[in-house]
Amino acid sequence: MNIRADIDLPAVSQRRLMSRIEALAEVGDTGDGGCARLALTDEDGAGRDLVVSWMRDLGLDISIDGIGNVIATQPGFDHALAPVMCGSHIDTVRTGGRYDGNLGVLAGLEIIETLQTAGITLGRPLAVGFFTDEEGARFAPDMLGSLAYVGGIGLEDALDIVSTDGAVLGAELERIGYAGGAPLPARPPHAFVELHVEQGPVLEAEDITIGAVTGVQGISWTEFTITGQSNHAGTTPMSLRHDAGYVAFAIGAFVRDLATEFGGSQVATVGRIELHPNLVNVVARTAVLTVDLRNTNNALLVEAERRLASFVDHLARSEGVTIARRALARFEPVSFDETVISLVEDAATRLGHSVRRLASGAGHDAQMLARVCPTAMVFVPSVGGISHNPEEFTTPDHLVAGANVLLAVMATLAGTGTTTP
Amino acid sequence: MNIRADIDLPAVSQRRLMSRIEALAEVGDTGDGGCARLALTDEDGAGRDLVVSWMRDLGLDISIDGIGNVIATQPGFDHALAPVMCGSHIDTVRTGGRYDGNLGVLAGLEIIETLQTAGITLGRPLAVGFFTDEEGARFAPDMLGSLAYVGGIGLEDALDIVSTDGAVLGAELERIGYAGGAPLPARPPHAFVELHVEQGPVLEAEDITIGAVTGVQGISWTEFTITGQSNHAGTTPMSLRHDAGYVAFAIGAFVRDLATEFGGSQVATVGRIELHPNLVNVVARTAVLTVDLRNTNNALLVEAERRLASFVDHLARSEGVTIARRALARFEPVSFDETVISLVEDAATRLGHSVRRLASGAGHDAQMLARVCPTAMVFVPSVGGISHNPEEFTTPDHLVAGANVLLAVMATLAGTGTTTP
Repeated sequence: MNIRADIDLPAVSQRRLMSRIEALAEVGDTGDGGCARLALTDEDGAGRDLVVSWMRDLGLDISIDGIGNVIATQPGFDHALAPVMCGSHIDTVRTGGRYDGNLGVLAGLEIIETLQTAGITLGRPLAVGFFTDEEGARFAPDMLGSLAYVGGIGLEDALDIVSTDGAVLGAELERIGYAGGAPLPARPPHAFVELHVEQGPVLEAEDITIGAVTGVQGISWTEFTITGQSNHAGTTPMSLRHDAGYVAFAIGAFVRDLATEFGGSQVATVGRIELHPNLVNVVARTAVLTVDLRNTNNALLVEAERRLASFVDHLARSEGVTIARRALARFEPVSFDETVISLVEDAATRLGHSVRRLASGAGHDAQMLARVCPTAMVFVPSVGGISHNPEEFTTPDHLVAGANVLLAVMATLAGTGTTTP
Repeated sequence: MNIRADIDLPAVSQRRLMSRIEALAEVGDTGDGGCARLALTDEDGAGRDLVVSWMRDLGLDISIDGIGNVIATQPGFDHALAPVMCGSHIDTVRTGGRYDGNLGVLAGLEIIETLQTAGITLGRPLAVGFFTDEEGARFAPDMLGSLAYVGGIGLEDALDIVSTDGAVLGAELERIGYAGGAPLPARPPHAFVELHVEQGPVLEAEDITIGAVTGVQGISWTEFTITGQSNHAGTTPMSLRHDAGYVAFAIGAFVRDLATEFGGSQVATVGRIELHPNLVNVVARTAVLTVDLRNTNNALLVEAERRLASFVDHLARSEGVTIARRALARFEPVSFDETVISLVEDAATRLGHSVRRLASGAGHDAQMLARVCPTAMVFVPSVGGISHNPEEFTTPDHLVAGANVLLAVMATLAGTGTTTP
């Protein structure tokens, strides 16, 4: 792709951006600063209606596909070229904040309004979209709309998915009026850029404004069920124990050491554990725990999995317990496009913002779009790293900084229309 | 005390012993091989009535004290001497077996019937007792009856104790008809010997029939509440975490290593843990766990507590978490009387049984009696070390072996009545 950045760009309006963020946050307002707009509920429908009304106000060409993804397009000089696209999602978890997802969609609208106001038309069309059910909090899997968008799941299979509350996805989509006719998989955009809050503490900890996201970590979730022998904690010598609790603790301590040893992007978490019978003076008979391993490098992730499996096998033998394992999730890492990542870095630097590269620990629609077009993401800091929580917060300055970087990257990718193919 | 063992003793009757064990097990039968006779419930009352009827059948002098302990005495040649006493308890936990406690009481009756049948009168009186609320499963603390017996708690304080179900101990005692008039604290017996199932796996693992119990381990229970920071397991680098779960796992692994390093009688158990929010992909904000440390040597137990406290302090600093601690229980070790322990060893050997010394990991009434008279215990093997469980089991051969050892030790302590002071 040819990269041109030879136009003077206006700055986005903080007032308009914040006003849209606040208006959308009122839909599904949970009264504690947060939002609940679970995918394809009435609240999600109302949120969609509001955003679509803004798309209409901007005179954009709106298309809705069979899974309910909504894409709004602003023409470029050359209508025939694939658009440069941005966007994210507007569904939330049950205890969602007001920025996660919404920022990427509303910043896209703000960019288009900024360009319209300045009378600027770029070479390629610009598109802004929101994808259905990114959170996966009601219908599994997550990132479902973008997965269907790139052809990763067939439409019929997607429409048959049943929610945790028993509702069928296709019926819910019809009910809220978002079963559209645009074909799936969609025609790939020229490039895709997603602005999102970091949902982690790295940028804030280093006092950096812009994250140039290099990709999404691979994820490996395993549940271990350890079966030992329940015994009296006073009368059973250490050498005669088959302590399921100890085995679980040893795994919890091991994965921490493993992550420290690997360094880099490797993280490891035991976030869930249940002992039985879970009494102060009884050696546990069973323990169930989960291990969450993530790395941006699949070879390292595979190696971490291998090391864990080897340690678990060793423990089973040395402690005389049985250990059953169940894979809960396994996603390979996604690498974003080097050219688009560099554009994010360059734009941030030109605009006077501190910037660093980092990988995303969470999944995003961008990782699906990366299958079909050059893709990257722009992160802005999350205060305290807090996410999926009513206390999620990003300062208005950072929101605006992210939107201006997004504008610069989109404009560069779209070109002026005179020489860009 | 003078030790004489110059009489030929008859053997106890397996048929009579098993018959009484089976009859008592029918009271509060839980239908799965186990018994539920929580202290001072109707079932406990019915169990007491049955045992007292057997005491009456044997023509024993029955006394009931203010806390409901029942002591039955068979005269010796010299009525004025303090009796040699055996006994245990007949209350159970909610999922109790049929041997725990009951064995020591019913073996005492069997010993007396064996001597009566053989026409043998010993020098000192023989007493067999059952103590109120040994299990502590309904009224805390456990070993309450024997504690009151030796003056470790005042009667009025004991009668005011409220159960987990809201009942008051004194009222329950009146209700089931066991608020007696014998004074407390009681006159100390000459010696006390308690026969009990091991409730642990040591004797079975070493194929040994008789345990000569040297004392009761000291117990230290501490609850730790760790408060860290809840974070996304994918987006939070290891270096920025304050993972309450990891800290709990590190403590669980540490106490195991500590027990291994100390060796000897040291045991250490983390049997209970709760994480919050306890989700696969969230670094835990809080963890609550308990540590159970036991050692027969109080200096070593204190050292183990110190080492644990030091490790926990270190973790709190290195992980940036706060750790609150709460002492749940602390009992110093109890050492039994060397002479009585040796009598148990000698009797077992004379009777052709394998024997080893071991400490009790669980608490027993004998540890209270040890405050006021020479005391020891006789253990017989628990199959699989299983305790407080309907599957609790000891073979009839082992039950009988234990009763014969108890008889020999009691007879030696009571003397023939001709030369014993």
